[in-house]
Amino acid sequence: MSRPPDDGIRPQEVAVTAPPPGDAALRFIGRIRTPWTARADCPRQGRADGPECRIELFAPWDRALAGLGAHARIEVLYWLDWARRDLVLQHPRGDGRLFGAFALRSPVRPNPIGTAEVALLAVEGAVLRVRGLDCLDGTPLLDLKPARAGFTPEAPPKPGVAG
Amino acid sequence: MSRPPDDGIRPQEVAVTAPPPGDAALRFIGRIRTPWTARADCPRQGRADGPECRIELFAPWDRALAGLGAHARIEVLYWLDWARRDLVLQHPRGDGRLFGAFALRSPVRPNPIGTAEVALLAVEGAVLRVRGLDCLDGTPLLDLKPARAGFTPEAPPKPGVAG
Repeated sequence: MSRPPDDGIRPQEVAVTAPPPGDAALRFIGRIRTPWTARADCPRQGRADGPECRIELFAPWDRALAGLGAHARIEVLYWLDWARRDLVLQHPRGDGRLFGAFALRSPVRPNPIGTAEVALLAVEGAVLRVRGLDCLDGTPLLDLKPARAGFTPEAPPKPGVAG
Repeated sequence: MSRPPDDGIRPQEVAVTAPPPGDAALRFIGRIRTPWTARADCPRQGRADGPECRIELFAPWDRALAGLGAHARIEVLYWLDWARRDLVLQHPRGDGRLFGAFALRSPVRPNPIGTAEVALLAVEGAVLRVRGLDCLDGTPLLDLKPARAGFTPEAPPKPGVAG
């Protein structure tokens, strides 16, 4: 089967002495459904006792859910598509103190990717039911992973490599 | 530095055909320096006692580091630019058992974004010294955030919103 043309894995493209130039491209693989339809309503952080939310996968990426249901906690990556990306110093408190974007978990950052660790309640076909999100209804989904804590790689250890 | 060759597809693994990604664009804001220059040498997961690594920010994004040094642990997002993106079912063990990409923390996924939580040892100008990474030397940096655990938003709570 063919792979996407931007994959950058062609043999002749390999030798770089600097990071790949320019941007990389994302695909939205699903949509997150939450109770919050305005930014002012979103909590600043997800809570373990927050409302149940839904994550809807788009085909064909729903096939990649196989086995995810074995994990009680998962990491969710999403795209904060309304956030501006040019503010390096921000003023969250209104008290005159500035913070760099990287010192905040604000949506406003050079690459507005949100991450959350949530409780996975159920996998129902192409839909996940989860608890612990804080994003707007309709937020584009980028990735799902088993949560880091407690995760053991399925692949065998590499000979001679610690970890 | 040369880019590692692509993995092939193993028997029974399933690749899908999809339009090229183009829903959103990323900028590379820095570069990660690790001891590992070949994929076979990378650990499968970062370790708290792993080697010290460096994260080098590109201008002007280094300005967004202000205040990050107050955090002992930070989240690092990076782009796994050599990974193929079309394998929805993978075969990590070679024992015939298939896993969906989302049930693995494999680099091979629709949006190859890696996440790690690392110990921040020092901020030295535009360079961070950290411990706990597992990625290849030269990996493009996408984002830095204070680690979720223990982080309290700088912004005041929103009236009427839990969390």
